[in-house]
Amino acid sequence: MKELRGKLIADRIKGECLDFVGKYNGILPALAVLRVGEKEDDIAYERSIKKRFVDYGLEVKDYELPANCTNEEFQEVFDFINDDPEIQGILVMRPLPAQIDEEAMLKKMNPLKDLDGITDANVAGVMRGDKHAFAPCTAQAVVEILKDYNIEMAGKRVCVIGRSMVVGKPLSMLLLKENATVTVCHSKTENIKAVASEADIVVAAIGKAKKISGGYVREDATVIDVGINVDEQGNLCGDCDWDQIVLKASAATPVPGGVGTVTTAVLARHLVEATKLQKNL
Amino acid sequence: MKELRGKLIADRIKGECLDFVGKYNGILPALAVLRVGEKEDDIAYERSIKKRFVDYGLEVKDYELPANCTNEEFQEVFDFINDDPEIQGILVMRPLPAQIDEEAMLKKMNPLKDLDGITDANVAGVMRGDKHAFAPCTAQAVVEILKDYNIEMAGKRVCVIGRSMVVGKPLSMLLLKENATVTVCHSKTENIKAVASEADIVVAAIGKAKKISGGYVREDATVIDVGINVDEQGNLCGDCDWDQIVLKASAATPVPGGVGTVTTAVLARHLVEATKLQKNL
Repeated sequence: MKELRGKLIADRIKGECLDFVGKYNGILPALAVLRVGEKEDDIAYERSIKKRFVDYGLEVKDYELPANCTNEEFQEVFDFINDDPEIQGILVMRPLPAQIDEEAMLKKMNPLKDLDGITDANVAGVMRGDKHAFAPCTAQAVVEILKDYNIEMAGKRVCVIGRSMVVGKPLSMLLLKENATVTVCHSKTENIKAVASEADIVVAAIGKAKKISGGYVREDATVIDVGINVDEQGNLCGDCDWDQIVLKASAATPVPGGVGTVTTAVLARHLVEATKLQKNL
Repeated sequence: MKELRGKLIADRIKGECLDFVGKYNGILPALAVLRVGEKEDDIAYERSIKKRFVDYGLEVKDYELPANCTNEEFQEVFDFINDDPEIQGILVMRPLPAQIDEEAMLKKMNPLKDLDGITDANVAGVMRGDKHAFAPCTAQAVVEILKDYNIEMAGKRVCVIGRSMVVGKPLSMLLLKENATVTVCHSKTENIKAVASEADIVVAAIGKAKKISGGYVREDATVIDVGINVDEQGNLCGDCDWDQIVLKASAATPVPGGVGTVTTAVLARHLVEATKLQKNL
């Protein structure tokens, strides 16, 4: 079985980013990361973004608020980031605490700074297949991996397991654009193993450790594992049971080192694209 | 085989509309139909809307522009409709001629008046599953028919043939909300007959007369035919070959008298909902 590692793709995107900052050396694309509270996952993700962006020649600016900040305090910081021409991209760690009016934030957010595709303009643009719409980075990362490894999507059957706004739904639209025949499965799907087993490509995006066993995968299918979970031994693992998948799939993404690696790189590419759009380059 | 006729559903929606105008008798919900040019299909659709809306106790206001009008003329009329508080719904006959800036129109359009779900806010709202988002009327009509005839969607396999922004894509999102397992097929799908034959429900939305033969349909499946075409004899027909479908399906919508009938009724219901939202009723 072939391991579909994300590193080579990430390195190529790194090259694109470094080329950009080299070419326009007065311009330093900056991402604002807005975090409310001290959730461990958020802090870990933020740390990995910062480490990567430094390598890629890009800037990250942190904006932190305490978990009990008021909605007004949050919106004020958000407005600053949203309006500041020195910031070209915004990543808001979600979900936000209950007191924050997320809808108000989404309504205001500049779609050109919305690198993770959460505004109406980008959600709708992804459904329409618009070239300049930002898709959620994780969904985009799945397509990048398939493209990079020359795994045919056009005409092929792809089963997406999971129907979230972060992965399943937007990914189904991106895959349609690539001319795949897309099936979306979820917790209410009957005979989910039988349905998934029809697919040439299975994408697991359910957020449950090792849930996708060999029974979900046809012999020689490609498996893309979007999940990042912690198993009973405290180790990182995906939504797929790797030991079983390797016996059936012809190719699969490892966790870690697969989709997650590419997701952060896609975020960096989106920041460069956003900078080009905002500065008309 | 059971014919899934739209008339009873349309009559029930008519009842809802008449109840509304009876209850709030100072309020007459008004739909503006904006048409550029004299396309026969547009005029026929407009005529059928008007006839129906009169029956339903609702108003239709016509706004017509010549095919060679300028973009400025168009936008001026559009702005008037969009801003007039006496108009609660807008239906723009599309596609518009090339000289009209459709994107500018979409950006301005009040989502609360956007009864056919073409603005970013409604496209995104439908993907998110928001309760108050307006879906394209045709896509919504498909779901209404399945609900009304108590055809189970939850957990079942639905194959949508067609991936347009008017039917296929938004319908796939509406069906996911109903907990269906959704497959979207299209012109690039390999073995499309085999794929469609797996489904409990097949929705044909490709706009090709009688293209969907019995080979696309599993014994006892339900078939929803969204197409409205003219056959070689000049008669109205759907995307399905009715003579073949009746031999295999357990239930199917006729053309005419099926989805189209419900679509105009859904437009009327959307106008009443839009009126409630705009007048806080």
